[in-house]
Amino acid sequence: MRYVVGIDLGGTNIVVGTLAEDGSELLGLVSEPTLPDQGGDAVIARIVKLARASMAQAKGKEIVGVGIGSPGPLDTKTGIVILTPNLGWVNMPLRDRVAAGLKLPTVLDNDANCAIYGEWWRGAARGVDHVIGLTIGTGIGGGIVLGGEIYHGASDVAGEIGHMTIEANGRLCKCGNQGCLEAYASGPAIAARAVEGIKAGATTTLPQYVAGDFSRITAQVVYEAANDGDSFALDVVHETAKLLGAGVASLVNIFNPNVVVICGGVTQAGEKLFGPLTLEVHRRAFKPAWEVCRILPGTLTGTAGVYGAAAVFMKRTWGAC
Amino acid sequence: MRYVVGIDLGGTNIVVGTLAEDGSELLGLVSEPTLPDQGGDAVIARIVKLARASMAQAKGKEIVGVGIGSPGPLDTKTGIVILTPNLGWVNMPLRDRVAAGLKLPTVLDNDANCAIYGEWWRGAARGVDHVIGLTIGTGIGGGIVLGGEIYHGASDVAGEIGHMTIEANGRLCKCGNQGCLEAYASGPAIAARAVEGIKAGATTTLPQYVAGDFSRITAQVVYEAANDGDSFALDVVHETAKLLGAGVASLVNIFNPNVVVICGGVTQAGEKLFGPLTLEVHRRAFKPAWEVCRILPGTLTGTAGVYGAAAVFMKRTWGAC
Repeated sequence: MRYVVGIDLGGTNIVVGTLAEDGSELLGLVSEPTLPDQGGDAVIARIVKLARASMAQAKGKEIVGVGIGSPGPLDTKTGIVILTPNLGWVNMPLRDRVAAGLKLPTVLDNDANCAIYGEWWRGAARGVDHVIGLTIGTGIGGGIVLGGEIYHGASDVAGEIGHMTIEANGRLCKCGNQGCLEAYASGPAIAARAVEGIKAGATTTLPQYVAGDFSRITAQVVYEAANDGDSFALDVVHETAKLLGAGVASLVNIFNPNVVVICGGVTQAGEKLFGPLTLEVHRRAFKPAWEVCRILPGTLTGTAGVYGAAAVFMKRTWGAC
Repeated sequence: MRYVVGIDLGGTNIVVGTLAEDGSELLGLVSEPTLPDQGGDAVIARIVKLARASMAQAKGKEIVGVGIGSPGPLDTKTGIVILTPNLGWVNMPLRDRVAAGLKLPTVLDNDANCAIYGEWWRGAARGVDHVIGLTIGTGIGGGIVLGGEIYHGASDVAGEIGHMTIEANGRLCKCGNQGCLEAYASGPAIAARAVEGIKAGATTTLPQYVAGDFSRITAQVVYEAANDGDSFALDVVHETAKLLGAGVASLVNIFNPNVVVICGGVTQAGEKLFGPLTLEVHRRAFKPAWEVCRILPGTLTGTAGVYGAAAVFMKRTWGAC
């Protein structure tokens, strides 16, 4: 059995693990804050240190390579991260620097692609042909797996599913566009819609969860209040399901996928979100498309990117994973 | 040089031609009204008759097979058309019936897929990897060509690009969903928006084009008036470009394609549409995606489906076209 190191580089945390080639074992799962303000050299040193720590916990195993998932845009062929505002990087040769540090063959792919590929390889979407995935957190990332392969597009930037327009003249998105899915259904957007509702006079217990400080209302607080029975918070969750449903229905009509997998903090809302979301997709999408498609929460919480980065190495190096 | 018959079956017309395997010759281009009211047997007899007429005009050539593009949903593996409201068919074994009539190996695919595949094989999107195509007429169909192959999805119904939601609570679409791209930018939707504007008091010469009969206002009439300098008609075209731009920008962000090709009657609006459409996509989509993507009108007017159906036969039978 061969083993591969999977590295999930995020703006907040670096997570690393060492995976058996059949996905049956995840050894040496380690994590540290990214601390991007310390600069690129420090971040890369931290990645290498964490990878060595993970490999040390897999002592005696045959470790043959490394996969890295990083924010992009990036170039999967040259291994260069072109631009990441979160990390402050421009044209960083991440793949080669990590490879040099670890003295192992290394591959690079986009972080959201890796997370969805992980869910395809060993998570919620295991074993199906076509998967469209959304990672919903601070933003909404996306990954597209078609015929068991990550779809990259013409210049490695495919999968920006969070920036599909669901309201042509809608809310302004951070990307500069109007009406993006992300502007309605990301964590901060869910919180913003809740705060707007409160300021418009909604009757709700939400302020009690944050000692009256609206700036502390997050999507998680909204889910918690909804679970506690707050009907306004529940309305916000249902509205989120409907807006997300408009986006997912479009994806179902366009891709006719086997699975739409939804990862990230939003899965904490559970059936209160996934129930109305599935109904909304059925209401909007074509029956021959939705009746073959399952909408599932991701199951590799916190490790999907690690699994996926390792799987990307296997797929590119061995042609299969 | 081998030759292949391409058949484009529409709700209104059947178009057939015989293509050289390198696309250099289109022989025996023939067409007749479909007349679906006469029933399936009559339509299939007409298809076979037209194919024979086309082959007769390619006399002496080695004709080796047949490709058919048909409205769907359909099953590309069994060659059965599952349901077509326009033709009134349910579970019609179209491929095998045409094959029996012509005594030639025959393949079946979706009509919009064939049209976009034709544009990829020998039209506007020739030679690129990834193409997203829209055929805008009575409805908005779509076709997805990735890595030079038609993408079919889990159950052969991928590519319903006209039914992506661009306004979550928007205009009712014939499909039952709200805010579909088709509900704004199909030919009838463009006409309906123009008529709504006139009824709301717009100053325009449009009624003069139809002797005051609003029911005769079509998208073509709107383009004609815009070309003649009618500023309201031009506004309708620009608004169409913006709405279409919201949809195309989503496709650019999701697929990162090399080309978005737009076929059908809407191309008659020319630069008055494509100019503001391209600007709107640049305004909305990510730069690394739009800067590698061209937005082009289809060039195989009236024959894209014939070219594409023949190319589908070649691709499936020989592995390449």
